[in-house]
Amino acid sequence: MATAGKVIHCKAAVAWEAGKPLVMEEVEVAPPKPGEVRLKIVATGICHTDSYTLSGSDPEGIFPVVLGHEGAGIVESVGEGVTRFQPGSHYVLIAVDRREIATELQQGKGVMPDGTTRFSCKGKSLFHFMGCSTFSEYTVVAEISLAKVDHRAPLDKVCLLGCGITTGYGAALNTAQVEVGSTCAVFGLGALGLAAIMGCKVAGAARIIGVDLNPDKFKIAQEFGATDVVNPKDHSKPIQEVLVDMTDGGVDYSFECVGNVAIMRAALEACHKGWGTSIIIGVAAAGQEISTRPFQLVTGRTWKGTAFGGYKSVESVPKLVEEYMNKKLKVDEFVTHTLPFEKISEAGCVRTGLTSSRLW
Amino acid sequence: MATAGKVIHCKAAVAWEAGKPLVMEEVEVAPPKPGEVRLKIVATGICHTDSYTLSGSDPEGIFPVVLGHEGAGIVESVGEGVTRFQPGSHYVLIAVDRREIATELQQGKGVMPDGTTRFSCKGKSLFHFMGCSTFSEYTVVAEISLAKVDHRAPLDKVCLLGCGITTGYGAALNTAQVEVGSTCAVFGLGALGLAAIMGCKVAGAARIIGVDLNPDKFKIAQEFGATDVVNPKDHSKPIQEVLVDMTDGGVDYSFECVGNVAIMRAALEACHKGWGTSIIIGVAAAGQEISTRPFQLVTGRTWKGTAFGGYKSVESVPKLVEEYMNKKLKVDEFVTHTLPFEKISEAGCVRTGLTSSRLW
Repeated sequence: MATAGKVIHCKAAVAWEAGKPLVMEEVEVAPPKPGEVRLKIVATGICHTDSYTLSGSDPEGIFPVVLGHEGAGIVESVGEGVTRFQPGSHYVLIAVDRREIATELQQGKGVMPDGTTRFSCKGKSLFHFMGCSTFSEYTVVAEISLAKVDHRAPLDKVCLLGCGITTGYGAALNTAQVEVGSTCAVFGLGALGLAAIMGCKVAGAARIIGVDLNPDKFKIAQEFGATDVVNPKDHSKPIQEVLVDMTDGGVDYSFECVGNVAIMRAALEACHKGWGTSIIIGVAAAGQEISTRPFQLVTGRTWKGTAFGGYKSVESVPKLVEEYMNKKLKVDEFVTHTLPFEKISEAGCVRTGLTSSRLW
Repeated sequence: MATAGKVIHCKAAVAWEAGKPLVMEEVEVAPPKPGEVRLKIVATGICHTDSYTLSGSDPEGIFPVVLGHEGAGIVESVGEGVTRFQPGSHYVLIAVDRREIATELQQGKGVMPDGTTRFSCKGKSLFHFMGCSTFSEYTVVAEISLAKVDHRAPLDKVCLLGCGITTGYGAALNTAQVEVGSTCAVFGLGALGLAAIMGCKVAGAARIIGVDLNPDKFKIAQEFGATDVVNPKDHSKPIQEVLVDMTDGGVDYSFECVGNVAIMRAALEACHKGWGTSIIIGVAAAGQEISTRPFQLVTGRTWKGTAFGGYKSVESVPKLVEEYMNKKLKVDEFVTHTLPFEKISEAGCVRTGLTSSRLW
């Protein structure tokens, strides 16, 4: 590539400070260093975590930063010694939890492994985000952040496999290991919840109960596989008691896809004693805590969480892309809006389904 | 038996009211009804739950009551239609959690399945306790509360397999499924904790860390298999951080054997991210709640509890008795005091090890 080894000037949506809208800027993207890869980002999803960080609610958020972590793109050039990645190949970027990797890499601190950043704008360095920074026409990532995908896969769809869909789907299949004939409850019918429902259905669950305060989401939940839908507002009893009554003692598996600690408790307590397992998928606000009576666990319930749906990203994402290409896995159905990159600021976080933004 | 079908007059330690000592009384024990068995109790353990209920701290405690639930005895007579139990056979009584069974049987309410009691004293009915009531020379229980044991087994030892030892041992083997080479931490080095250590050792754990505030317990913990002992008082950091540092990131399995919700949290947080599992064995005071940041679970830890160590009591206790007879399972080592029945009030709950009381 003619650009290899050179600084690339391109557009990026820069988050200059917390609580302010993204600003479309011309930024400089430095060449990749050893162990790094520079990509042309073709499309990016917009995830709740991006909005959450931009809002300033995350005490660990740092600015100025190039947000975005559900991206897909094409390798432009590679750093010294990088041999696994060929310019022109297609990749989904993997959102690595920044706290999870903070001990080994510097990405948790918004910088590349060598402690510096590859982005600058108007003479200022811009931080990286979750090792991805996909709200830019070009980005630089560490080798571990890339999963190769079939070049026929539409990048504006499979980019969503870099985070939300994979997490919800894998929570059912890998973390919970839902069994044929089981009864499941999914709390929160956004993208994570729909993906969890899809996972429960693929696993053969006999009954999948979708729970949400917003009845507008019930139709799509049923299209994804929910057999029952429940609105807590329609009941005077706590939702866990409603579910226990509906299921003769509680569900086998429950999934919290909201990020609300009170709902995490309800999801656990809706499980059947003796064997019920509840999986936390949603991300709660900083400092909030889950709680319950220990008797809930002593009587045989299990409380777990999931990060990236229990998948080993680099190996698993290509397989999920294949499932999608073979029409076993829904992805298109999650996309409710596709916006040109210039309008990324308008996207916000759409409550049902995901928003994808095409950069090119 | 000459006594079959008749009321038996015998001694029992009666708990007339909360917060008062047990009183040795002559009580009447009615014959067993259909589905019930009357036993002569030979020995009983004294468990923390007995003391806890007697103290009045349990809001669900009811009085007057015949306490005791770690008993072993000999069948005296059986109710109508009962064919599985022969007078003269030896049984360990199984402590069924009273809340657990409350929906199907009436034992949770201190009465037999037909809603009445078999005990009376001075014209007053006495309640049953956990379906056992072993602080009496004779008792009546439901068929489901009995596990047959080898008649050669010493009843004043194997009675302890009816609750504490089995629970701690099974928590390691069944609930956690500790693996060969793993690292474990056991919080609280009383009977439950020693039993958990024994289970971890049998499972092949490479490292077993005993944690207690009382250094007097460290020697016996090491005799049971602890490879390390830690006193939180010796450290300025929270105990979970001490353990994470000691184990290069946290333990594979932890066991809470105290019944303190703060320690339950520490035990969870001492687990390794990605796979660590914490098991709650101790029983917390009524109304208390466990809490943690959901991030602890989302990063791959699992929080579980155990009731009776995950054993199916009626089938498992005879096998444990066999392991004990074959010297694979320690039981004698748990018994620190053996008192005559008249002195049962003096026993209290000995902090290291268990106390057994011989009735005959």
